[in-house]
Amino acid sequence: MMHTYPSRIIEQAVEEISKLPGIGKKSALRLALHLLKRPETQSLQLAHALVQLRTETKFCPKCHMISDGDLCGICASTKRDEKILCVVEDLRDVMAIENTGQYTGLYHVLGGIISPLAGVSPSDLHIDSLIQRIASGEFDEVILGLSPTMEGDTTAFYLTKKLAEYSIKISTIARGIPIGGDLEYTDEITLGRSIVGRVIYE
Amino acid sequence: MMHTYPSRIIEQAVEEISKLPGIGKKSALRLALHLLKRPETQSLQLAHALVQLRTETKFCPKCHMISDGDLCGICASTKRDEKILCVVEDLRDVMAIENTGQYTGLYHVLGGIISPLAGVSPSDLHIDSLIQRIASGEFDEVILGLSPTMEGDTTAFYLTKKLAEYSIKISTIARGIPIGGDLEYTDEITLGRSIVGRVIYE
Repeated sequence: MMHTYPSRIIEQAVEEISKLPGIGKKSALRLALHLLKRPETQSLQLAHALVQLRTETKFCPKCHMISDGDLCGICASTKRDEKILCVVEDLRDVMAIENTGQYTGLYHVLGGIISPLAGVSPSDLHIDSLIQRIASGEFDEVILGLSPTMEGDTTAFYLTKKLAEYSIKISTIARGIPIGGDLEYTDEITLGRSIVGRVIYE
Repeated sequence: MMHTYPSRIIEQAVEEISKLPGIGKKSALRLALHLLKRPETQSLQLAHALVQLRTETKFCPKCHMISDGDLCGICASTKRDEKILCVVEDLRDVMAIENTGQYTGLYHVLGGIISPLAGVSPSDLHIDSLIQRIASGEFDEVILGLSPTMEGDTTAFYLTKKLAEYSIKISTIARGIPIGGDLEYTDEITLGRSIVGRVIYE
């Protein structure tokens, strides 16, 4: 019986690929066999991109977003509202918010979210530099753009406490029923929150 | 608005990762950001494993299975039934059948399956060498171990025609209701086949 792989090379590839989140041994083997059927250049380019990603990626010294140059494009821009700062978990959130076209302020990328279960504590995140930016007094408002999850709420609570001593307006992105969402099928926690946090017509 | 990535390096990584089957741009970005948070060695080891996989993997000259040495472990073994040959699509099928512990014969790995939609024709597969192995007269039976899908059936039909001129017993793995499966919830094609292909008690 073959409980192991017929080749050390493929076993090693499966081992490394399956270290990625959400990819099990079976999917890893499927991906490895796929690469074996494709031209050699595809695997080499993928490998090269991964090495570059991890060894050459730079981060903006102001907002910690991934950036090719020194300052990122948003921090370097003169067209942004430099009085508003939006705190987010990572680059994906910046891209999602930028794609709405509704926000013109600056960002601060935490590089993660407080999660005792995943072993992520406040000291693992870019919180000290956030406090410094707020302490400098250059911002009027800080928006906590964190996901409405247990970890997001924990992080928001921690930041709110930390920022309490500075005279800055703190806000959070609105939570409620998604546009186009069906009230009847909304989970009760979201629905409850959207009633408590109702917006009064003015 | 940022419709593109803030860094050429991350864009390139996303581009290459999302060429893998079943991984879209969003998942690719998630994987890239994950690697950026992990130690550098993980990305370098993954890249190294991918290069090795594509440049150093060897194939058994007899059955075309991936193998480290010259002959694969199964072809080199003296404990296998050398009169039975099982034709399969790829390595995963060999591993699945070996794990059952119910088969002691040899294998022939086609390296794919006939699929006009995916542009895979018989000439892309190891069919010529299969015919040669059968023509040599060393086998009593060839088992078509192909999936009961449109492509699997097409390939089985093609091989059956090709092998018709040789005096060899051709069989296929049994199709029917899976063990533990519920007759009521079995799709009608499977159920229909399992009635037509019923096994008579002897």
